[in-house]
Parts: sequence; structure tokens; C-alpha cells
Amino acid sequence: MPNFVLQSFVKPKNKEKKKGALRVIPLGGLCEIGKNMTLLEFGNDIIIVDCGMAFPEEDMPGIDAVIQDFSYVLQNKDRVRGIFITHGHEDHIGALPYLMRDLKCPIYGGRLAIELIRRKLTDKGSGTRGIQLEAVLPGDIVKVGTSFAVDFIHVNHSIADAFSLAIRTPVGVVIHTGDFKIDFTPIDGEPINLQRFAQYGHEGVLLLLGESTNIEIPGNSPSEKKVGESFQNIFQNTQGRIIVATFSSHVSRMQQIFTAAEKFNRKVALVGRSMLNVFDAANSLGYLEMRPDTLIDINDIDRYRPEQLVILTTGSQAEPMSALTRMAFSSHKIVEIQQGDTVILSAHPIPGNEKPIYRVINELFRRGAKVIYEDLADVHVSGHAFRGEHQLIHQLVKPKFFIPIHGEYRMLFKHAQLAKDLGMSWNNIFILNNGDIFECSKEQARISGYVNAAPVLIDGSGVGDLDNRVLRDRRLLADDGVVAVSLVADKKGSRLLAPPSVQAMGFLYESESAQVIKECSEKLTAYVAKCSQSNKSLSSIVESGQMRDYLKSLLFEKTKRRPMILISVTQL
Amino acid sequence: MPNFVLQSFVKPKNKEKKKGALRVIPLGGLCEIGKNMTLLEFGNDIIIVDCGMAFPEEDMPGIDAVIQDFSYVLQNKDRVRGIFITHGHEDHIGALPYLMRDLKCPIYGGRLAIELIRRKLTDKGSGTRGIQLEAVLPGDIVKVGTSFAVDFIHVNHSIADAFSLAIRTPVGVVIHTGDFKIDFTPIDGEPINLQRFAQYGHEGVLLLLGESTNIEIPGNSPSEKKVGESFQNIFQNTQGRIIVATFSSHVSRMQQIFTAAEKFNRKVALVGRSMLNVFDAANSLGYLEMRPDTLIDINDIDRYRPEQLVILTTGSQAEPMSALTRMAFSSHKIVEIQQGDTVILSAHPIPGNEKPIYRVINELFRRGAKVIYEDLADVHVSGHAFRGEHQLIHQLVKPKFFIPIHGEYRMLFKHAQLAKDLGMSWNNIFILNNGDIFECSKEQARISGYVNAAPVLIDGSGVGDLDNRVLRDRRLLADDGVVAVSLVADKKGSRLLAPPSVQAMGFLYESESAQVIKECSEKLTAYVAKCSQSNKSLSSIVESGQMRDYLKSLLFEKTKRRPMILISVTQL
Repeated sequence: MPNFVLQSFVKPKNKEKKKGALRVIPLGGLCEIGKNMTLLEFGNDIIIVDCGMAFPEEDMPGIDAVIQDFSYVLQNKDRVRGIFITHGHEDHIGALPYLMRDLKCPIYGGRLAIELIRRKLTDKGSGTRGIQLEAVLPGDIVKVGTSFAVDFIHVNHSIADAFSLAIRTPVGVVIHTGDFKIDFTPIDGEPINLQRFAQYGHEGVLLLLGESTNIEIPGNSPSEKKVGESFQNIFQNTQGRIIVATFSSHVSRMQQIFTAAEKFNRKVALVGRSMLNVFDAANSLGYLEMRPDTLIDINDIDRYRPEQLVILTTGSQAEPMSALTRMAFSSHKIVEIQQGDTVILSAHPIPGNEKPIYRVINELFRRGAKVIYEDLADVHVSGHAFRGEHQLIHQLVKPKFFIPIHGEYRMLFKHAQLAKDLGMSWNNIFILNNGDIFECSKEQARISGYVNAAPVLIDGSGVGDLDNRVLRDRRLLADDGVVAVSLVADKKGSRLLAPPSVQAMGFLYESESAQVIKECSEKLTAYVAKCSQSNKSLSSIVESGQMRDYLKSLLFEKTKRRPMILISVTQL
Repeated sequence: MPNFVLQSFVKPKNKEKKKGALRVIPLGGLCEIGKNMTLLEFGNDIIIVDCGMAFPEEDMPGIDAVIQDFSYVLQNKDRVRGIFITHGHEDHIGALPYLMRDLKCPIYGGRLAIELIRRKLTDKGSGTRGIQLEAVLPGDIVKVGTSFAVDFIHVNHSIADAFSLAIRTPVGVVIHTGDFKIDFTPIDGEPINLQRFAQYGHEGVLLLLGESTNIEIPGNSPSEKKVGESFQNIFQNTQGRIIVATFSSHVSRMQQIFTAAEKFNRKVALVGRSMLNVFDAANSLGYLEMRPDTLIDINDIDRYRPEQLVILTTGSQAEPMSALTRMAFSSHKIVEIQQGDTVILSAHPIPGNEKPIYRVINELFRRGAKVIYEDLADVHVSGHAFRGEHQLIHQLVKPKFFIPIHGEYRMLFKHAQLAKDLGMSWNNIFILNNGDIFECSKEQARISGYVNAAPVLIDGSGVGDLDNRVLRDRRLLADDGVVAVSLVADKKGSRLLAPPSVQAMGFLYESESAQVIKECSEKLTAYVAKCSQSNKSLSSIVESGQMRDYLKSLLFEKTKRRPMILISVTQL
């Protein structure tokens, strides 16, 4: 294993100390939710922490995903020593297939993350050729280049194999929390390794990068164990089928459902592509404990009585194509919701998904299901630390400098405020934007410049081939539709050879549309004739935008709408 | 005042008793939030309770508002004896300008509601001619036709002059709760008149129509007074300007802000058209108590020091054009957010508005404002009853039949469940859809049919002139844009007279677009030539959709996108 050294916790050796400054460059995850990615640079070495994607905003119609601008990374690709993955969630690994098309370097991460990345790279076509995938265990330290040694510290989160990273650099230790919570009674193995944070804190930490997802929630997050207790209560008191929707990557949640199912003599069937994928990955690593006959094929559910069944499904965010949404609207080809079903939504609505989720819940009720969701029962706990947990980490780590990460501006601000309330000086706390270059030595830190970090939109086959104009046009097209006009004129462009052809889409109700279009065609003929009398050529009035303006005001007057207008002129 | 009789609480006289059935027809507000409207019919008489609008869903691009299908009302307009308004919120009065274009009948409501309706009808062009607007006081009973007497029962809600209606009919008393909460310490006058509910309950209530907005929240809603206390705490501890965003119709909230401002020696300036409108209406009725010099013009704020100012504004839902949104994004022409400002969002996000609201909050933080919102402080309480309050109303009223109203399906279901848990038989509880005809006598009830009640979408000048196809086209246009092709051919349609003209919008980034369009044009020329060789006419391949399919697969292959396609053929 080249570049890969396991060692126990060690103090830095003197020869490792060098002159120069450490540069930290977040390419995503700041002032936003998602597409987390951070670069660390020292001398000739660059390492990358995470490479996630973000989901498109509602004002990005037709966009499939949003990723980072990789240009700075690709300009410096010879210096990239490795990518370090904190855990296997999409907002931390989802952009890898796009980056790895053009970058070949080792990727280090927990076993589940590496397994999910392997599948993702294979699926998405970029493949794994030339990319070394290295699975680490908690406490492993990976040295790369001459400047960096990365210690994987075990933490709790809503996916197995999640890590904070302690990155030893020539100017000091940087701790990147990744996503974490403090769970003293987790389902998958050990509680977070708080001692390790304390050891680094005792040694002295130069910089803390701390996630900010739940910084607005006071107190401490409840343990995952609580959800298991709720499941057991619900399973005990339920007669019919139980359908549980949750995040497909949540292996502990999956485990708790298997455990409850076995306790109350139910079989479990899995539905949804991503659920099956993560199950496969986790199961191949031996992360799931169950009896061999507990899992059944979804096609076999009719062989069991309702009280013998649990269906574990995707769709907890009411994604339009997900299994649960299809079940609710009777378009799933195997599972139909029936009277007596109990549906558990074991997830919290991601902001923006509330309305679709409630639409699915309404449909489930309408079909006679009993629906249990977070508002009403403890069927979900967050995988992210609350304020109290952040306070503890800050107290253990006691960094010299602090950068809040993973959050919208208000969260970063509040996390900064928390650090200040614990005694840090405002001068040592930095709220960054994506692309800011944070530069620090042992003594001081500053923002020294920036690199391109505008979001890159992915639609269909293209990467980054959409600009704001295309999006603006799409939004305008959605508002009032489009009207397309074709004109055929003589060579000089002074006379129309046929009446204008006018077509509309998304504009008016069909019956009304015909009348308006006919009128447009007539008025345009008259307009061209009039322009021709005053010696204006057709091409000039089209190119100058005059004709579009004329048509626009004509249509607005008739309909109070402002469709987009396309005009083509063919001269013969 | 014709048809208008004030009387104290009376038992029904024998001669009022008639044969026949009462019909209750909800035209809006069932299985949805908004556009509340219910018809009651007996013999030759119809009365209408409320006539509100709904906001468009996110899958209705370009739509301004959603209203009811009025066709049943208009087919029976000679029988409509009056419209009874429970209170002046948009979801209860907002569709009146559309209905009153074609219906002339009296409208009865509280003083504030009537004043707001008067302004609305005047603004929106339908005017008030032929429409009798009658302001009532709590306890007023309005008799219309020969079948109905409507008692206005004072209730608490997030707007002044809110009422439940006790409607005496020949078969018994119907209670329509309107929107309400139970507030023992309200700001505007009296607590809800619980005795009146009890009196009717004691006499015997045939049917209860109960609002369901907060049926999922256990316990009892806190008093509006609590918000006032929070304001006073915040005002006491704030140095700079205070900017409060709240619902413009919330007169009590407005009053509490004036009260806190005066207590801490601040002036109040109002921003936002709807805020000014409701303030004017409420103030003209004497509903606001303040010193004459407390209110200042927004243009005069520069004459005061920050600690002397409160700015009361619209925009608590981050509506794109609202004053607060403009302030946050530095596009308001008078008020700019400055370091040291404290912004209070005194409202709860309406589901679906979370993301825009957080976007505004992030911007406010970024500009150096301190932002206080519901998650963190008691700066808002709901105007709708929680479960405990609903239980009390059910116990006081003890209806024979019950219809939950104002809510999505799951809320109606849970309200039905609440009634059942309190001892009602499922057979006497009816979960209706909009348009269902509920028919009942003293003894029995059933759903006897239905009337048209599909939502009517309003866009620009038109009413109801949009169908699902137009909306579907708009959504598709938004996804991948549009490509318009113009072909000019000879008379026979076998030969192109010019190369095809291809234009695109919202499809590809401009630089890439040129190449794809050029290729399309060439391929189409070849395609037409090939078709012509096999004796297929141009019009036949266009009309049959063959050419569109060809172009579609060509574009998908090139770009993995599926733009909408418009093809026009001109033959010379």
C-alpha cells in the first residue's frame, strides 16, 4: 500500500516542520447545503476532503445535480496527493464521478464509503481505472506527500464508517469534523472517539473546520437507540403490513428495522434501487445482522400474511420517482397500499420537500393507511450534532483558528457566535465563502485571495454547459409559454411571400389560442406592410427587436401575458 | 336594512319548521389549504359562507391565483340570498372580485372584513354596484330568505372581527366555525364567546363544520398576549432599528408593535402596500390605539436615530416582491438593512415557503442584521385552535353530524378521528371532497351527488382559461427549453426552398447551441430529401409527428435533453 502508513497516535517529529503557509480552500458547502469539498494546500502538496453534490434549487428547472467548479483542482492536478472522504453520503461523494473523469489520484475513506464510491464510479462510466481506492479503519493514519498525515477519527453519524479527520500539517493540526453527532448508545459499534479529539486538543490544534447543520437546535441530539425503541413499540402494536421509508444510506436505521422485524416475527422486503444498492454494499461488508431467512424478495410478499411483513423502501423525501411516492399514487408495479397498512416515515423533511411529503402522506391516508411521521412519534433522530455537542467539541479541541463549514450563512454565523461565546476572539474566527483562500501559519491567518467556485449545473449529458441565461429563459418559458413566428419574404426582405405562421405552446387554452394566433398573423402582415412602406427592411425590424416588441405588446394587451417570442425569417 | 334583523338568542318558532333536506356543498377548502367556500341550500334558498382564493402550487408556473368553479352558483344565482363572511383573510374573501362580476347579492361580515371587501371590489374593477355590503356586530342575527337565520358568534383569530356562524335552518342548527382559536387574554377585546357555543349545544346542533388547520398539534394554542411580552423584552434590549415583518392583516399584532414602540419611545413607519391598506381599514374603524405622533411616514425615517425607529413591513413569507425581500437584497428604494438592525420575523412559514424565507434570513445576517425568528423566540403564535381547543368546541356543541373542513386530507381525517374519539359514531362523520353534496334531515345524512368543483386557475386577464395541457407544456418548456423549426417548401411539399431555420431557447448554452442547431438544420435537409425520394410529402411527415420524433431522438442523442419542438411549414 504505497503512501499508506498505519501508526498510532504520535507527536510531530521535528524534521516535519517546514516554512510556509497552509492554505485551506473550500470549493463547496459554505453558505449552502450540499456539495461539500475542501482543499488543503501546503508547499507542493494538495489534499482534498470530500467531493459531494448538491440537489438543484427550485429555480433551476431541468437541472439534475449541482457540483463544484473543478478548474482550480484540474489546473493543479499534479499536486493532488489524495482525496479523503469523511463518509459515504451523496453530499460528500456524489461529485466524484465528474471529478475522476479528469483526475487520477488515490481516494481514502471508510469501508462503506469506499464500497459505495467503487459502485458509483463503475455505474457512472468514469470507471475506477487508475484510481486507487483505499479503505481505512478508525485510527488509521495516512501520510501523503511531504506535508500531510491524516488521522481518521471515528464519529457517529447517520451512516456507518463516518470520520472526522485530524490532518497534521507542517504548521499544526487541522481538524475537519465531517458530519457528526455524539451518540453514547449508537447501533453500529462504538460511540464517537472523544478521547482522540481531547488528545489533539491537549497537543494543540491550529484550525478547526466544524460542520454547522444543526447549530440552531439547542441541547444534545437524541441517540439512534431511541428510534429503535419507537420501532419496537410500533411493531408490537401493529396488525397489518408495516412499510418503513427512510434514507437508503442509513445502515443503522436499516439494522433497527431488521431487529424489530425479527423480534415480532416479520420478514423484510426491500424496495427502491438505492436501498438495494446500499444494503448490498453494507451487507457485503458484514455490517448487517439478521437471520438468513429474514430478508425476502419483494416479488414474494404475496406469500405472506400482512402481519408477517415489513417493506423497507426509499422515498422518505417524496422524490417523484421513488418507491413510496409510486405506492401512494398507485403506480408501483408490485406494492399497492391497502387498508390496514401502517406507513412509517422515518426521516425529517429536508427544507423545500415539505409540500411533496405532505402530498404523499395525504394520499396514503386516503388509501386507508395509518401514517406515522416525525411530528407524531420518535421515528427519526438527526445524525448531526446539536449546539451542546458542538460546544463540547470546541472545548475538547480548543483550536487557535475556527472556520464553520457545511451550512447556510445564518448557520455559519451562529456557529461562529458559539465559538466566540466560548471565548475565542472574533479575529480568529473566519466565515468564508466557497472559493475563498484561507491562509494560515502558526501565528496568524487571513483570507489571501480566491479561486473560481461558482456552482456548475448538470443537465443531461453536459457538465457545466448551462449558464444563467438558459435558466432564466427556462423560467420565463414556464411562466407564460412561447410563441414562435416564421416569416417568408422576398430577397430584398420588403414583401412577405406567405402569411406569417404563428405557433404557441404553454401560452393559452387551445380554443382561445386559435383566435389570438389568427389575429397575430393578420396584424403582423399589416405591420410588415407598413414598415415596408417606410422603407424599413424586414431583417432590420426583426434584428433590432422592433418586431418582437410589437408582438409582445400586442399579446400583452390581448391576454395580459408575456410569452417568450421566437421569430425566424427565411428570404427567397 | 332589508333582510336584516337583529335579535337576541331565540329558540326556533314552530312555523319555521318545514319539510325538506338541507344541502351543504363545499366548493373549496376541503382536501386543500385555501379557497374556502361552502354553500348551504334549503328549498329555494342558497347562502354562501366565505369566498376565498388559494395560492398556486409550485407545479403551476405563471399562475397568479386559484379560485373555485362558480358554475353551480351562477346557474342558481337567483336563489342566492347572501354571502356570509367569517373574517377578512384572503383565503376567505379573495375570490369575491371574481364571483361578484356575475353575481349581485348582499355580503354580510364583520366591520373589518366588510371594509376590506369594499376596497377589494373597488380595486379589482368589478366594483360594488348592486352589491349590498352589510357590517354586523357580534351577536347580530341575519335572516335571509325563508330558510336561514345566521348568528355571528365572536371568536378569536389572527385578524379582528372573526366569527363562527350558527345557521338556523328548518331542520336544525348548523355551526360553521370559520377560523378560530380560544384566547382567554386576546389583544382586541373579548375572548371567544364560548357560552354561545354551549347554548346552541344545549339546544341541539344538527351539524358542525369545523376548521382543521392545526388539528395535528396537541394541547392548546398560546395567547396572542405572549407575543406582546416577547416584543417588549426584545424592544427593551435592542439599541438599533427594529424591523418587524408580519402578516399585514394581523391587526392585533400591529397593535402590540405600536404598544411596545410607544413604551420604549420609538416611532413606527409602515412599509408594503397591503400593510398600509389593512392599517388604513383598521384605523378608520378605530381598531388601533396609539398616540397621534407615533406613526411616521417611511420617507421621514432618516430624521430619527436608529434607536427611535420601528419599521413594520410585509414580507414575512419572503414573497419575491415584498418589502422585506427587497430590503434583504438591497433593492428597496427607501429602507436599506444596516449593521445593528434587528429584524423580527413575526410569522410562521407557510409550508412550501421555508426555503425562500431562509434565503432572506441568510441575506439579512450577511448584511449585519440580527434576525429573530420563531425557531428562537416567542415572536409568533398561531391564530388557529390546537387539538385541545377543538375537543372543547366539540364537547360544547355536541353535534349530531360532523364535517371537518379547511385542511388537507390527513388533517380532515385526524379531525374526524378526534370527533370519533370523543364518542361520535363514524356513520355521523363525513369527510368530503370539494363539490360533494352533503344532504341531511333531522335524522339522517348522506352524500347525494356532486357539483363541479375543479380548481380554476387565474393567469393574467383570463379566468379559468388554462387547462392541464397548457400547464404541462409549461413544465416541459421549463425542463429543457424549446426548439422551433421553420420549413419553406414548394407547393407540392416535396422540396425545400431554403435550408430549415432552427431556433432554440432555454435549451443549451449559447456557444454549444450554434453547433447543434447547424447540425440539426443539415440533418433535417437530408431527412426531407430522403422522405421525398420515398414519395412522402412534407406535410404528411410533419402532421404525422414523424419529423418531430426524428428531431427529438436526434437532439436527445446529441444532448441527453428533450426540448419541446415546434415545426412550421410554409408552402409557396
